[in-house]
Amino acid sequence: MFKVHNFSAGPGILPADVLKQASNACVNFENLNLSLLEISHRSKNYENVMDEARSIIKDLFEVGEDYEVIYLGGGASLQFAMVPYNLLSENGTAAYLNTGVWSTKAIKEAKIIGNTNVIASSEDKNFNYIPKDYSIPSDADYLHITSNNTIFGTQIKKFPKSPIPLVCDMSSDIFSRSINANDFTLIYAGAQKNMGPAGCTMVMVKKEALGKTGRKMLSMLDYQVHIKGGSMYNTPPVFPIYVTLLTLKWLKQNGGISWIEKINQQKSNVLYNEIDRNSLFHGTTSTDDRSQMNVCFLLNKPELEVEFDKLWKDANISGIKGHRDVGGYRASLYNALPIESVNVLVEVMKYFENKFT
Amino acid sequence: MFKVHNFSAGPGILPADVLKQASNACVNFENLNLSLLEISHRSKNYENVMDEARSIIKDLFEVGEDYEVIYLGGGASLQFAMVPYNLLSENGTAAYLNTGVWSTKAIKEAKIIGNTNVIASSEDKNFNYIPKDYSIPSDADYLHITSNNTIFGTQIKKFPKSPIPLVCDMSSDIFSRSINANDFTLIYAGAQKNMGPAGCTMVMVKKEALGKTGRKMLSMLDYQVHIKGGSMYNTPPVFPIYVTLLTLKWLKQNGGISWIEKINQQKSNVLYNEIDRNSLFHGTTSTDDRSQMNVCFLLNKPELEVEFDKLWKDANISGIKGHRDVGGYRASLYNALPIESVNVLVEVMKYFENKFT
Repeated sequence: MFKVHNFSAGPGILPADVLKQASNACVNFENLNLSLLEISHRSKNYENVMDEARSIIKDLFEVGEDYEVIYLGGGASLQFAMVPYNLLSENGTAAYLNTGVWSTKAIKEAKIIGNTNVIASSEDKNFNYIPKDYSIPSDADYLHITSNNTIFGTQIKKFPKSPIPLVCDMSSDIFSRSINANDFTLIYAGAQKNMGPAGCTMVMVKKEALGKTGRKMLSMLDYQVHIKGGSMYNTPPVFPIYVTLLTLKWLKQNGGISWIEKINQQKSNVLYNEIDRNSLFHGTTSTDDRSQMNVCFLLNKPELEVEFDKLWKDANISGIKGHRDVGGYRASLYNALPIESVNVLVEVMKYFENKFT
Repeated sequence: MFKVHNFSAGPGILPADVLKQASNACVNFENLNLSLLEISHRSKNYENVMDEARSIIKDLFEVGEDYEVIYLGGGASLQFAMVPYNLLSENGTAAYLNTGVWSTKAIKEAKIIGNTNVIASSEDKNFNYIPKDYSIPSDADYLHITSNNTIFGTQIKKFPKSPIPLVCDMSSDIFSRSINANDFTLIYAGAQKNMGPAGCTMVMVKKEALGKTGRKMLSMLDYQVHIKGGSMYNTPPVFPIYVTLLTLKWLKQNGGISWIEKINQQKSNVLYNEIDRNSLFHGTTSTDDRSQMNVCFLLNKPELEVEFDKLWKDANISGIKGHRDVGGYRASLYNALPIESVNVLVEVMKYFENKFT
């Protein structure tokens, strides 16, 4: 059977079984003889999907009743605004760690809403490392960090011990490794990398953090409104949430985060080892901060680009062209990518080296 | 073959061909051997989808270069906030016509952003008619109306001649009948009734109306940001937009709005005629304002509810229970509902009358 090795940075690869189930639900959802796309979100069958989609997040993160989970439309970019709108008080300050394009965008939106303090940034080196030497102001309303930087291929390996509420954009590495979710006040993630398709965003938040800004709030931007409505204050993005649930069930049924963490370590080790070994490539980031999700690398001889591109395309590899801000190549190794695909890429890199050195 | 007659108020029925194509795209999109759910929204194939999804709106509405079309997440409820955020100046006033639950919600959000003037309301009679005797303040920034009221089953038959920009929530009757779209400054609609599945909202706006409020704007709430990004400022709701495009192509290929308008008239005539004729039912709304999309009716003998419910369920009719604010029954006759389904419902009503009178 024809097989594409899908290294897309996002929307990214999803498990084949999930795609098959999603396909079936489009024509006959749970034997209702109706498509999931044409039934009420208030139907019993879909209410079950929503309940399960919310509870599985808490299962996987191992958090208790003090957290709420909601699904929203609008993408993680909308959360760049909603986080300060819900957590930054009128006269308060929000602390931000700037580790890339998405952090920078989050900071831009927060500035429209209130005061910000960028406590550290790696912009000086085109975001090729994670700042570590910074202090967290104890009087700020929260600290916002980005756990993984899709574009630059860096990842926070050790989360800061924060004296203030810790908020994290985990869009590109959620559920890829063990973390202590209880250390976070708010975690959000666009679904389209490790969780599901484009079109929904998950927000998990500690209830106690909400309702404190004194701001009169627009309903759709108010986490408390969505919590109260069980993510059905208005019609939710029905199908994206369903496919997200399928993907998370796939993860859980196969062994959960401890299972996928080992595979993700293995996948990234295999690829980084080859980048380090192969005389025709080098990595773009500080070794300590290398992302297990997005592996960025450059050709040592840029004039060989056409030749290398032909080789990986011939091997049915897809989606490894680097982002324009970094250039070169980026192989995204999200949860659903099998190690076999990484092995194929490594074989191509070895063959390329043999042929051109 | 088993056939469900799907009268759901929304998410509502979609054409069977569209559902089949959507199902296929989940496993193999345009013969890429990749699912639409796992490819980049920046891929050529998807950029074509987005371009076409935007241009088909302008085709169907017969508008020119002075309009822009964008697709957003968040549902029409987010537009209740975005419309005043983008069009209501700091010291201006926005005029609203209040014809139901959704209008009321739109007004609530506008009040958080600025000054509002509700120029007429049908709340006095539980929104069972459309106010007609009102004057439009020529100094307001815009007039907001709701073309069809899903919950109460009323519809504006003749749009007001407005001296100020006319903004319309067309979520539940867009593309169901001929209108002069050039009379409107902004039209928005959640996809999940007449256009596609839940998860995306279409906004068509006259460019000249934007950028005038003086408000410093959050990026995700700024129409101009999304226009500039071609609806890809951030990752869009990929699949909902694709299915919306398929549904609009189905409409266009079958004859467009003039074709569906005749069918919709026929469907609603058949059902309203039966409600008026049948001694066991009566309609809930002012006859002049009856919606062609959502037909609300009550039993004259509420004690026969169990018997009627059994009959329509046995006929494989689905989704006709009325909204809790009105009670009784609501049959939604969206574009994709075939006249055959209406005929089955009418047969059930006739049989019910014969049996119980």
